[in-house]
Amino acid sequence: MTDEYFMQLALKEAMRAFEEDEIPIGAVVVQNNKVLARGYNMTEKLNDTTAHAEIIALTSAFNNIGAKYLPDATLYVTVEPCVMCSGALYWSKISRVVWGASDPKNGFSRLQSSISPFHPKTAITTGVLETECAALMKEFFILKRK
Amino acid sequence: MTDEYFMQLALKEAMRAFEEDEIPIGAVVVQNNKVLARGYNMTEKLNDTTAHAEIIALTSAFNNIGAKYLPDATLYVTVEPCVMCSGALYWSKISRVVWGASDPKNGFSRLQSSISPFHPKTAITTGVLETECAALMKEFFILKRK
Repeated sequence: MTDEYFMQLALKEAMRAFEEDEIPIGAVVVQNNKVLARGYNMTEKLNDTTAHAEIIALTSAFNNIGAKYLPDATLYVTVEPCVMCSGALYWSKISRVVWGASDPKNGFSRLQSSISPFHPKTAITTGVLETECAALMKEFFILKRK
Repeated sequence: MTDEYFMQLALKEAMRAFEEDEIPIGAVVVQNNKVLARGYNMTEKLNDTTAHAEIIALTSAFNNIGAKYLPDATLYVTVEPCVMCSGALYWSKISRVVWGASDPKNGFSRLQSSISPFHPKTAITTGVLETECAALMKEFFILKRK
């Protein structure tokens, strides 16, 4: 299975967020080509600014495998993780993080740190289905401004 | 009520973590001199590396006031927040963050970023009951190495 396939699943989660009037970001955690956990942004629904797609997917993955590290898993997320989520991914010791659209305003890269917030053992892939992931965000904010 | 008073309450939470064989970090969220929420590190108990004292206290505070921002609250935490927790505090728009001991290895300062991870409106106070907060951590890790 390809990165595009799993990012498509993350996009499906993002679309659920969109339908629920949440900033449309979705994530899936994958291990051995199987989806361990899914999550989409629920900050409005839960009245909790920590309820990002990545945090929900990570917590669900920990629960599902009964372990607090994910050294064999990959997290796919439609948009570059924020500082909080990159820090959460660090603690999880996840094998790989893949995202679609970059987010210099709200993503971890806003800190412009020369030290990566991710774990040294975590591989990073960016730009997977970038256009689709970015388009969903753009559409959401255009509708919000109307 | 003083910062020392509320940090003492955060230390009490840290001691609960210690008793449960968790890295001893505790936090309280205070608004109008009243404790809105408490939290201590539960990463082992919950098998969830995102279950830091600050995240638990923040989520509890959001629930308790039914709002997703905390512009009038202060979070007291015994040890410098990590990257994840500083990012979570950013999203909460909390008025003030106060910590006891610094943590250059695991705290947000490990990124050595010139841009603060906290919200521009968040005031920072450090070093409150620093000796007590650091001593509890040191004692824990000495016992762990035995």
